[in-house]
Amino acid sequence: MISFESDYITGAHPKVLQRLIDTNLEAQSGYGSDAYCASAAEKIKAACGCPDADVRFLVGGTQTNATVITTMLNEYEGVIAATTGHIHAHEAGAVEYSGHKILALPHKLGKLNAEDVRNCIKTILADESCEHMVYPGMVYISHPTEYGTLYTKQELTDLSNVCREYNIPLFLDGARLAYGIMSRHTDVTLPDIARLCDVFYIGGTKVGALCGEAVVFTHNNTPHHWVNRIKKRGALLAKGRLLGVQFDALFTDNLYFEIGKHVIDMAEKLKAMFAEKGYTFYIDSPTNQQFVVLDKATLARIREHVAVSLWEWVDEDHAVVRFATAWSTTEEDLAQLKALL
Amino acid sequence: MISFESDYITGAHPKVLQRLIDTNLEAQSGYGSDAYCASAAEKIKAACGCPDADVRFLVGGTQTNATVITTMLNEYEGVIAATTGHIHAHEAGAVEYSGHKILALPHKLGKLNAEDVRNCIKTILADESCEHMVYPGMVYISHPTEYGTLYTKQELTDLSNVCREYNIPLFLDGARLAYGIMSRHTDVTLPDIARLCDVFYIGGTKVGALCGEAVVFTHNNTPHHWVNRIKKRGALLAKGRLLGVQFDALFTDNLYFEIGKHVIDMAEKLKAMFAEKGYTFYIDSPTNQQFVVLDKATLARIREHVAVSLWEWVDEDHAVVRFATAWSTTEEDLAQLKALL
Amino acid sequence: MISFESDYITGAHPKVLQRLIDTNLEAQSGYGSDAYCASAAEKIKAACGCPDADVRFLVGGTQTNATVITTMLNEYEGVIAATTGHIHAHEAGAVEYSGHKILALPHKLGKLNAEDVRNCIKTILADESCEHMVYPGMVYISHPTEYGTLYTKQELTDLSNVCREYNIPLFLDGARLAYGIMSRHTDVTLPDIARLCDVFYIGGTKVGALCGEAVVFTHNNTPHHWVNRIKKRGALLAKGRLLGVQFDALFTDNLYFEIGKHVIDMAEKLKAMFAEKGYTFYIDSPTNQQFVVLDKATLARIREHVAVSLWEWVDEDHAVVRFATAWSTTEEDLAQLKALL
Amino acid sequence: MISFESDYITGAHPKVLQRLIDTNLEAQSGYGSDAYCASAAEKIKAACGCPDADVRFLVGGTQTNATVITTMLNEYEGVIAATTGHIHAHEAGAVEYSGHKILALPHKLGKLNAEDVRNCIKTILADESCEHMVYPGMVYISHPTEYGTLYTKQELTDLSNVCREYNIPLFLDGARLAYGIMSRHTDVTLPDIARLCDVFYIGGTKVGALCGEAVVFTHNNTPHHWVNRIKKRGALLAKGRLLGVQFDALFTDNLYFEIGKHVIDMAEKLKAMFAEKGYTFYIDSPTNQQFVVLDKATLARIREHVAVSLWEWVDEDHAVVRFATAWSTTEEDLAQLKALL
Repeated sequence: MISFESDYITGAHPKVLQRLIDTNLEAQSGYGSDAYCASAAEKIKAACGCPDADVRFLVGGTQTNATVITTMLNEYEGVIAATTGHIHAHEAGAVEYSGHKILALPHKLGKLNAEDVRNCIKTILADESCEHMVYPGMVYISHPTEYGTLYTKQELTDLSNVCREYNIPLFLDGARLAYGIMSRHTDVTLPDIARLCDVFYIGGTKVGALCGEAVVFTHNNTPHHWVNRIKKRGALLAKGRLLGVQFDALFTDNLYFEIGKHVIDMAEKLKAMFAEKGYTFYIDSPTNQQFVVLDKATLARIREHVAVSLWEWVDEDHAVVRFATAWSTTEEDLAQLKALL
Repeated sequence: MISFESDYITGAHPKVLQRLIDTNLEAQSGYGSDAYCASAAEKIKAACGCPDADVRFLVGGTQTNATVITTMLNEYEGVIAATTGHIHAHEAGAVEYSGHKILALPHKLGKLNAEDVRNCIKTILADESCEHMVYPGMVYISHPTEYGTLYTKQELTDLSNVCREYNIPLFLDGARLAYGIMSRHTDVTLPDIARLCDVFYIGGTKVGALCGEAVVFTHNNTPHHWVNRIKKRGALLAKGRLLGVQFDALFTDNLYFEIGKHVIDMAEKLKAMFAEKGYTFYIDSPTNQQFVVLDKATLARIREHVAVSLWEWVDEDHAVVRFATAWSTTEEDLAQLKALL
Repeated sequence: MISFESDYITGAHPKVLQRLIDTNLEAQSGYGSDAYCASAAEKIKAACGCPDADVRFLVGGTQTNATVITTMLNEYEGVIAATTGHIHAHEAGAVEYSGHKILALPHKLGKLNAEDVRNCIKTILADESCEHMVYPGMVYISHPTEYGTLYTKQELTDLSNVCREYNIPLFLDGARLAYGIMSRHTDVTLPDIARLCDVFYIGGTKVGALCGEAVVFTHNNTPHHWVNRIKKRGALLAKGRLLGVQFDALFTDNLYFEIGKHVIDMAEKLKAMFAEKGYTFYIDSPTNQQFVVLDKATLARIREHVAVSLWEWVDEDHAVVRFATAWSTTEEDLAQLKALL
Repeated sequence: MISFESDYITGAHPKVLQRLIDTNLEAQSGYGSDAYCASAAEKIKAACGCPDADVRFLVGGTQTNATVITTMLNEYEGVIAATTGHIHAHEAGAVEYSGHKILALPHKLGKLNAEDVRNCIKTILADESCEHMVYPGMVYISHPTEYGTLYTKQELTDLSNVCREYNIPLFLDGARLAYGIMSRHTDVTLPDIARLCDVFYIGGTKVGALCGEAVVFTHNNTPHHWVNRIKKRGALLAKGRLLGVQFDALFTDNLYFEIGKHVIDMAEKLKAMFAEKGYTFYIDSPTNQQFVVLDKATLARIREHVAVSLWEWVDEDHAVVRFATAWSTTEEDLAQLKALL
C-alpha cells in the first residue's frame, strides 16, 4: 500500500528528526522562551528579508488561522475570504467560535480577486445601516490555495494595495508555502510575501515537521499580550522547543526550500504520468496537490493499492481525486502508481 | 548549569523518542485515525482496568482542561474548582474564554473538600433566584494538585459520591498523574481513578513526552461530535500519530510508571538532602514538586548554578522556591545541587 | 414632514398604550413570571391553534434571533439561511458572536428554496471530512422576508419536510408576521406556521408595540433552562410585564390582525399610487414594505418632505427606495405623499 | 396583598408614563438616533456636571453590565469585583459568556476595599508567570451595593486613585443610584461619581421607568463602534425613543431625585417601624433595601399578606428577608405592613 493521501501522512524529515535527537537532553525553558525558538526566528527573518518581523510558533494550521485572525480583528470586524477558503469550508467554524464572521466572496480557482475585495469593502462602508453590519477587518488568502493554485506577484500586489488603501491587514495562510515558493510556475518569493502581507505563516506540518507553523508579523504589528492570548486559547505549547528545534532545522542550509523542491519534482512527475495516460485534471495545479478526474471503476481499482483523498463527485460515475506528494514521496512510489494507471 | 525548573525542560524519554524514530516513515492517516492512537488507547484502557473507556489524545494541558470542561458542561453550568486550581489561577481565563464560569471554592493544601462541594451545590440549587445564577455542572480537581499534594482514596471517594448524588461529572486533571500514582504516600491507583472519576487525563508532556495528554472518558460519556468540537477549538493535530506513538511507547512495558518511579525517587532524595541541611518546606509534598523556603541570599547563590521556579515571597527576605524533578533528572544533578546547599 | 421610513418610527398602538396605563399600578413579579405574560401566552397559543406550544417574550428582533438560534443549536452546528437573511446581513454578526456559523445559501426574492436546503445538508453529511465542517443544525427563514416577499403554503411545507427528514428545526423570523398573515396574496395562516415550524416568533416591535417579540416553541421543545440562558445573554427583562401586557393587548379582540390589515391596506394604496404614476418597483411586494425605483432628482425632492430608507443604488442615477407603512400611517400621510409624486 | 418584593414590581412613574403618552404619535428615527435620546443625554450631562460625558441608553442592568465590561476590557483582561457583586453572583455568568473572567475579591458589607484592589493588581503584575494569568483590566463596584450599603466619598476616591495609578477604568453599577444619592447617610453626589469613575450607569428600571439604564462614559472614552457592538450583543433597541423619552422625563424638573427622595423616605419609615418593634437587621442599610431577620413563623404570617424576598437563611429558624420600597410605595402600604408586625 502506498499513499498519496496527503502531505502529513509520515513523520518528520530525517534532518528535522535528527535535530530533535541531538537536542533532546538539553534543558530549555518552556512556552517558547527557549534558545531554539529564538534562533529559528532569526533564520526565518533572514529568509524573509524582513528585519522588522516578529516570528512566533504555533502547533497547527486551524489553530494558527483562528488565533491570528481573532487576535488581529477588532470585535466589530470580520474577515474577508473566498468561499473555498480553508477557514470558511474546513475548519469546523473555528473563526466563528471566537465570535467573528467570515465575509465570504466568490473565488476563481480558489483565489480572491482584488476588485471583488474592494467592492465588498466599499459597499459595506457606504451602507446607511453599516452599524448593523460586520465591518471588513482583514483579508485572508491561502497560497497555495485549497485547489493548489497560486497568486501571481501582480495579483498579490493588487490585494495588498486594496488592504493598505483601507488600512486592514492582509493575512496569507502558508500551510503549504514551500510548494508555492518552489513551484515551477510562480514569480512570488518569500521576501515578496513578507513585503506585501501584514502577517502570514510558514507551514511546518505539511512540509516535513511533526507539527508546527511559524507566524510572521511583518512590521512590529504583533497583537499586545499575544502569549497570554495564545494561552487563553489553549494553544501555548509547554515544550515550545519542539517547535523551535524543528523550524531551526528547516531553516538551516535551505532545508525548507529543498523539501519544497523535492515535493514539487515528485508532483510534476506524477502530473506528467497522468497526462501521458490521457487522464483529465479538474484543475491545472502548479503545486503538490494534483486533482485528477477518475471514473468509479478506476478509483476503486486504484484505492486497493493507493491511499488517496476523494475530493468530490463530478457526476454519478466520475470523481475528483486528490493525489498529494510529500517530503517522503519516492521515485518508487511513483513507479508503483504508474503501474496502476 | 543544572535545572530543576520544571518537569518539561528536556525532550522526550529515550524510549519514547526511539518509537518516533522507528515509526517515522510509516504512512498513517491524520487527525487521530492512525493505528498508534488506536493501539495506545487499548493499552491505556487495560492499564485503567476500564473496558468501557474511550481514550482520546490532545496536545497540551490547558487545551485539554478547557476542551473537556467546555464540551461537557451545559451552557447554563459552571465548573467547581479550588481557588488554587490550575484552570482558575494559571490558564489565562481559558475556561471563561469558552463562556463558562469557574465556581471557586477555598482549598486545603490545594485540595477541594467534599463537604464544601456539597454545600456549594446545595446552596445554589436551593436559592429562590437560582435561574439568575450559574449552575454547578462539574467538579474539577488536580491530582497531584498544584502544590504537589494528593487526595486519599477516601477523599476521592467522597468527592465522587457528591458528584454522583447530584449527577454531575468529576474531572481529574492528571497533568502529573504518574507522580501521584507512584508516590510513596498514596493509596490511589489508576483503576481507582478510572472508577471514581467520569473523565480524567493522563499527562504526557510532564512525564517524558514531547507533548500530549490522554483523555479518558470512563463510561461511554464522550461528548457528541468531539472530534468536530476539538477542531472548532483549533486543537485537532493533523499528524495525530505524534500523540499516538508517544503514548503507545509510554504504555508499553510499564514505561509510564517507571518514569513515575524514577522521578519520585529523585524527588525523595532531593527532599532528604534539603531536610538534612535543615531547610524548611512550605508544604510537605509527596510528589515531584518540592517547595523549599530559601532566604534571599541563598536563592541568589543557588540561581547562579541552578534553574528553579520562584513560587512566591513569604516575606521580604524569604521566598518559596519550587524544585521539580523530571524524567531526565540524574544522580549527578542531585550531587551538584547538594554541593550548593 | 411625514415618514415612511420604517414600521418602528412611532410609539405604541393606542389600545396597547391604554393597557399599559390601565395596569400601571398593579404589583407584578418580575422576569416574566407576571400574570400578563401568562395570559398573553394563553391567547397566543389559542390564536396559533397549538395547545402544546410554549410562548416566551423577548425584547427585540436581533436578540430573539440570536437567542433562539444559539440555544437550539448544538455546538457543532450552524444555521442555514439565505444570503439576504436578516441574521446574515444586518445583525452585526450576532449569531457568530455566540460561536455559530451561518451557512448562507442563495436566495430567490429573499426566499430559501427547499431543494437548495436539501442539497446543502446532503453534501455536508456525505463529505468524507465532514468532521472538519459545520453541521447543518437549523433552517432560518423570515416571513415576510427582508424583501417583503412571502412563502406559499407549499413552499413552507417543502421546507418543513426537509427539516423533518433531517431532524433539524425550522425557525421562522416573524418580525413582521402580521403583514404576512394579513397580506392579500397569501395562503399561509398562523396555525399553518405553528404546524410547519418548530419555533417562530411573532413580532411586536414592528406591529404596534413599544418593544417585544413573542417566541413560540411549537411542541414542548423549549431549550432547558431557557430563562437562565436568556439571563446569561443579558436579555431577561426585569419588568417582564412590559412585554406581557403589550402582547395581551395585541392578542385581545384580534388587535394584532386588525393592525396587520390596516397596514396592508395602507401599503396597497401606496403601491397603487406609485403604479398609477408609472413608477417601477424593484420587487413586487405583497406586504408593507414597498421598494420603488426613483431617480436621483426625485429621491432628493421627496426626501425634503418624506423620511424614507435608501435601500441600494441600481446605477449612478437610480436608487431603490423603501416605503414602509405602519400602524400609525394615515390616509392623510398617503395624500401628502401622493401630492409629491 | 401588598408588595415590598422589589423596586421593579409596578409600571412607570406617572410623569414618565405621561411623557410616553404625549410623544406617542411623533415619528422618530430608530436605534437611539431620536430627539429624545439626544435631549435626555444633554440633561444627564448637566446633572452630572460633566460636559465631556457621552451618554447612551440600554434596556436592562445585566445587559448594561456585560456590555460595558466586555467592550471596555482588552481580551487578556478580567474585571475585579466583590464576591457579592451582582455580576459575580446573580447574572448567570453573563460576563464570562463574553469570554472574560471576574477576579473576585472579599467584600466588607458588599463593598470592595481599595487596598485589597491594589494588592490584587500588584500581585498579578509581579508574578513571574503573569502571562499565564488574567490581567486586571477594570474595577466594578455597585452603589448602592447588593446589600444596600454605600461607599463614602473617601472610599470612592481611594478606589479611583488605585484605578488611575494602574490606568484601568473604574465602573460603577448604579442600578439603584437614586437611592444612593438621596440617602440620608451619604456624602457622595452625582458629580462626584462622574468625576471619580470612568464609566457608570444611572438605573431607570428600578427608579420609575418601565425599562432602561443610562450609561455615562465620563471622558470621551466610549469604545469604538459601540452601537455596532451593542447590536452584535442583541441589545440595540429598535424604538430607542422608549429609552430616550423615559430618561428625558426622569431628568426634567429633578424627577429622578424626587423619586429617590420618596423611596428613601418610605424606607426610613419602614426601618423605624421594624426597629420600634424590636426586630433585628442583618445589615444597617442606608438605602431602599432593608434586610430584616424574621423567625419562620413570622415570615410565614407576613407572607400571607405581603410579597417579600427571602434573602438567605441564618439558621434553621431564622431568615434574612428583604423589604424594598419603590416609587409606588405609599403610606398606606406601610400602615398595612405595620399592622402585621
